[in-house]
Amino acid sequence: MKSSTLTIEVTPAKRFSYFDLTDELRKAIKDSGVTEGAAIAFCPHTTCALLVNEWEDGAQEDFRRTLRALVPEDVYYAHDDLERRTQNLDEVHERQNGHSHVKALLLSATSHAIPVAAGEPMLGRWQRLFLFEMDDPKERQIVFHVFGE
Amino acid sequence: MKSSTLTIEVTPAKRFSYFDLTDELRKAIKDSGVTEGAAIAFCPHTTCALLVNEWEDGAQEDFRRTLRALVPEDVYYAHDDLERRTQNLDEVHERQNGHSHVKALLLSATSHAIPVAAGEPMLGRWQRLFLFEMDDPKERQIVFHVFGE
Amino acid sequence: MKSSTLTIEVTPAKRFSYFDLTDELRKAIKDSGVTEGAAIAFCPHTTCALLVNEWEDGAQEDFRRTLRALVPEDVYYAHDDLERRTQNLDEVHERQNGHSHVKALLLSATSHAIPVAAGEPMLGRWQRLFLFEMDDPKERQIVFHVFGE
Repeated sequence: MKSSTLTIEVTPAKRFSYFDLTDELRKAIKDSGVTEGAAIAFCPHTTCALLVNEWEDGAQEDFRRTLRALVPEDVYYAHDDLERRTQNLDEVHERQNGHSHVKALLLSATSHAIPVAAGEPMLGRWQRLFLFEMDDPKERQIVFHVFGE
Repeated sequence: MKSSTLTIEVTPAKRFSYFDLTDELRKAIKDSGVTEGAAIAFCPHTTCALLVNEWEDGAQEDFRRTLRALVPEDVYYAHDDLERRTQNLDEVHERQNGHSHVKALLLSATSHAIPVAAGEPMLGRWQRLFLFEMDDPKERQIVFHVFGE
Repeated sequence: MKSSTLTIEVTPAKRFSYFDLTDELRKAIKDSGVTEGAAIAFCPHTTCALLVNEWEDGAQEDFRRTLRALVPEDVYYAHDDLERRTQNLDEVHERQNGHSHVKALLLSATSHAIPVAAGEPMLGRWQRLFLFEMDDPKERQIVFHVFGE
């Protein structure tokens, strides 16, 4: 039984952009020496999401448009109401990102568990693992935990 | 390689309330003796969800309002139509919770896999693990499975 | 420590139908010999989802109706716009399934991690594991990875 944990850092280009992590996942598995087992991909953030789907510009545009219509940016968010808010206000410049939290909660895509066979993630033909940034872009961490034989 | 499974019981205060489980998760990891590995948090229920996000009243109010607008309580649910329904009717008083099932299915937040390092869950600075109750409150179970070295 | 990975194939009856996988999950756990541990259920596809909830016709109808209202089929999808699209076009007959990708991304239900005790998945009384097909029906694979003692 082997296991290893690796944290990588990525910086998405802009808000609502996607960042492909599939090659990083593959590398984390290779470097772990695990050939049969599973990999956990974990996002330690609250305003972005880890998605597994096709990497195709049209589908990504469609998803971005749909999610922004379901959880619009131009409505009231209590999280952004500095006249009401009292918690977690230790940042110099508090971001207006209530919408991003709600989008992240709706997706609930903080972690994925992906079986590993022959040293490769068992992703389907059209599946890629990617980060979806829903806040203003900044450096993000992704944690891969790989375990097995 | 160690592993341990722990089931805890919690009772949310009311419908659409949140119940913080982060300290319970930390304790489950400590008690397992695992310092490097991962923890699975699993919810064995069909009308509540396990969420990982910021614990801030405003963001939680925003999410509650958004989800209730997307999946309203005051529309027809076949699950609650006792003139049609024939399955799983062994309860004395069948709850009117069709909306809760739909909310739970939309979130699909039954389990999370969280890497563990130095005996702690690798949650980000703003991340907390919490239960979101979408039905009338009752006792709920949460299962933690921790594994690693 | 034992682990085993099993891939099964199922063919849903039609678009927006549900396919119960609970017995297959149970069998995968039994066949692995694991009595205490966890099981990962993974869907290597991009237009269907793995759900854990009650198996009841009404709730399933309610969810189908709600999701189709939130992500309708009869609006524009860039993924289906063959005048714009340039990527991943190696199929003879490209499916018009932009809506299915968006539904799958919104659900983000590609994998579940389920603790195992006494050789059984620790599913709650009302929980079943099932596939939700959101595209035209075809053969689908489901991967179970079971690990533990």
